[in-house]
Amino acid sequence: MKGGPAAMVIDQDAIARRIDAEVAALARPPYSEPGDGVTRYAFTESYERTLGRVGGELERLGLEVERDPVGTLVARPGRRFFAVGSHLDSVRSGGPWDGVLGTLVGVELRRLGFDVGAVAWVEEEGAGFGEMLLGSRVAAGELDTADLEERIFALDDGRSFADHCRAAGGSPERLEPSRDLMASFEGWIEVHTEQGRVLEDAGRRIGVVTAIAGYLHAEVEVRGAADHAGATPMGLRHDAGLVAAEAMLAAEQAAGRAGRGTVATVGWIALEPGAINVVPGRARFTLDIRSPDDAAVAEVERAVRAAVRRSAGERGAEASVQVRGRRSATPLDRDLSSLLLEGARACGAEPLELVSGAAHDTMNVAPFAPSALVFVPCADGVSHAPHESADPADAALATEVVARALAILGRPRREEA
Amino acid sequence: MKGGPAAMVIDQDAIARRIDAEVAALARPPYSEPGDGVTRYAFTESYERTLGRVGGELERLGLEVERDPVGTLVARPGRRFFAVGSHLDSVRSGGPWDGVLGTLVGVELRRLGFDVGAVAWVEEEGAGFGEMLLGSRVAAGELDTADLEERIFALDDGRSFADHCRAAGGSPERLEPSRDLMASFEGWIEVHTEQGRVLEDAGRRIGVVTAIAGYLHAEVEVRGAADHAGATPMGLRHDAGLVAAEAMLAAEQAAGRAGRGTVATVGWIALEPGAINVVPGRARFTLDIRSPDDAAVAEVERAVRAAVRRSAGERGAEASVQVRGRRSATPLDRDLSSLLLEGARACGAEPLELVSGAAHDTMNVAPFAPSALVFVPCADGVSHAPHESADPADAALATEVVARALAILGRPRREEA
Repeated sequence: MKGGPAAMVIDQDAIARRIDAEVAALARPPYSEPGDGVTRYAFTESYERTLGRVGGELERLGLEVERDPVGTLVARPGRRFFAVGSHLDSVRSGGPWDGVLGTLVGVELRRLGFDVGAVAWVEEEGAGFGEMLLGSRVAAGELDTADLEERIFALDDGRSFADHCRAAGGSPERLEPSRDLMASFEGWIEVHTEQGRVLEDAGRRIGVVTAIAGYLHAEVEVRGAADHAGATPMGLRHDAGLVAAEAMLAAEQAAGRAGRGTVATVGWIALEPGAINVVPGRARFTLDIRSPDDAAVAEVERAVRAAVRRSAGERGAEASVQVRGRRSATPLDRDLSSLLLEGARACGAEPLELVSGAAHDTMNVAPFAPSALVFVPCADGVSHAPHESADPADAALATEVVARALAILGRPRREEA
Repeated sequence: MKGGPAAMVIDQDAIARRIDAEVAALARPPYSEPGDGVTRYAFTESYERTLGRVGGELERLGLEVERDPVGTLVARPGRRFFAVGSHLDSVRSGGPWDGVLGTLVGVELRRLGFDVGAVAWVEEEGAGFGEMLLGSRVAAGELDTADLEERIFALDDGRSFADHCRAAGGSPERLEPSRDLMASFEGWIEVHTEQGRVLEDAGRRIGVVTAIAGYLHAEVEVRGAADHAGATPMGLRHDAGLVAAEAMLAAEQAAGRAGRGTVATVGWIALEPGAINVVPGRARFTLDIRSPDDAAVAEVERAVRAAVRRSAGERGAEASVQVRGRRSATPLDRDLSSLLLEGARACGAEPLELVSGAAHDTMNVAPFAPSALVFVPCADGVSHAPHESADPADAALATEVVARALAILGRPRREEA
């Protein structure tokens, strides 16, 4: 086999310089909307220009570039191919690296001569249309034309996704070519910023994700009685807010007990009527539970439900839990992940195996093709904010790690083929 | 002594009918603004018409009726007098009984021939100008002309209290006559709905307040770190929301430990950024602590501060407590309260001694004249809401209780004088 790890010489400095310059260029108008940070929703002018720029470069690198029916950018070397990519949309006032990094790693691998294609899934963030991972869910057959026409609307102007998609040249009424895409992948690797502080805290420059966490999203409502804060003795209260407080702490404790990377978060709460001098009569709060182990999610869910029930019962309140969304954990491909770990060590980096608590398009690809996810650190774990920052040297390292994995996998570089 | 309790015959049914009809009349336009419930801010047309109607009746009952410089209605039988009253303003969409009850008890006592005056303090609720107990605080010397001109503004149109007051015929630039009012009271009794469920739960129709609780109002701010809810392990979090949750429960426990009628409430909380999938980086919540015992307020305050400090410290967050307002408890006059208890028993009612957690104008009168506060139940403790409701028979009972106390006190009825 030619092009094995030992034979490979890759100029990481040059890759870092190119990625750094391209990340900076895409973070400014006309590739981002004016304003703080990066804003780039699917089908906006800045988005279309970005896909034009990146697609043009992929074409120059010898790939056949097309948009799938819902607008996902696909640059392919042939009918079946090994794909490397991520996404090019951004939340409002987001950071320059989110999604762009993984897409540019695809470009760089192609530039290095690897026989790979690149994919940038449309509407990963859900910031434009309120549905996350939209492009990869369409390709995975989870969303159909009726969803795009009648259920999913732009948050800005209320027009349907299908309308916006058609205006951008798409054909949301015929999704087969998108679904065929999943079948055309021989494998899939996404490189992404970690969006957390695990790598940074561990002092590692590269992470290989073993599984993407499953999650439960729910909203809890507690109904007590709104009473005058001065005129109602403690023993006569039905304080909905205190039920919420007990549930919040129970969620934390249950996640800690469950271990295995399990996390639970109450990120939003509202007390009603919400006045300094009124005992809360109603409390509503969100619940986000995630774990690479579905049993752990269920365990924390049961613990929180029990805590809410017990606390509401003790306080003469009623409570209900509305599940908004639930998804199983996605284990990633062990063989492909092992090659990435091997590739990292061949580069002299000590990789960290970790779980992704955040969702990624990779979870939709995994059922169709061997899939892997590589993380690089982002400063202080900050993401979805203008000051999101990553080290271009880490991006270059990730590029070489993937290159070495592809080489071990026996996918030759063009120069060497 | 003539007119002692044994000799007194009072037609409670007739009083109940009159109060019921008058409460209903004042709850409708033109005495309340159109819309749900009663809305009647100081100096609005509905307020001026209400004072005109009640003042006219008090004049017919032989009293000299005037407005003090800030608009408080004063109906006096002479220079010095025993006053019975409450207030005639209402919160937005409030109930028909709040304030009106105590003012009408003054009217009924006068109708019964007692040598009393009646007072309706202006802007008790603070709904029009954002400052509670405004009329009685001016009379008590706590607010001066500069406050009324430069600090206190109508929530609706932003014009100063002084402007609105002048437009209604007041003279906020010369407050002496208002301050003289406090000195002219030989005594003061206010009858009010309880605005809580203590009487109702105890099955009592009349309450005599031993003290009006002192309070602490504060806002607590916790600053942690906003992190991705999926990507941040439990051990790496600085969750500001959980500090708030621990503080809420600590406040409840400390109030319970303090006893003596002490209550603590967190009625409002906000987590930021406030998304289901983001660990709260900032939490703000209000704190309301009340007790008839100032030491108990201080004890709960210390406990909450300690809990916030400890929890923030453990979670790598920072916290600060901003005190918005603090007021000592007001013990009411023991002798006058004893007469009211005696009067209640003479009516065959078993009175309950209790603490008022809510503020009332009576707390501003108490330093100047022997003062007492009588409560009647309101259904389910509901107040400041359109469906606030009280039993006219209880209102009539309260009238007779005050009448008997006045009689024992040696204040004769006209017919008998």
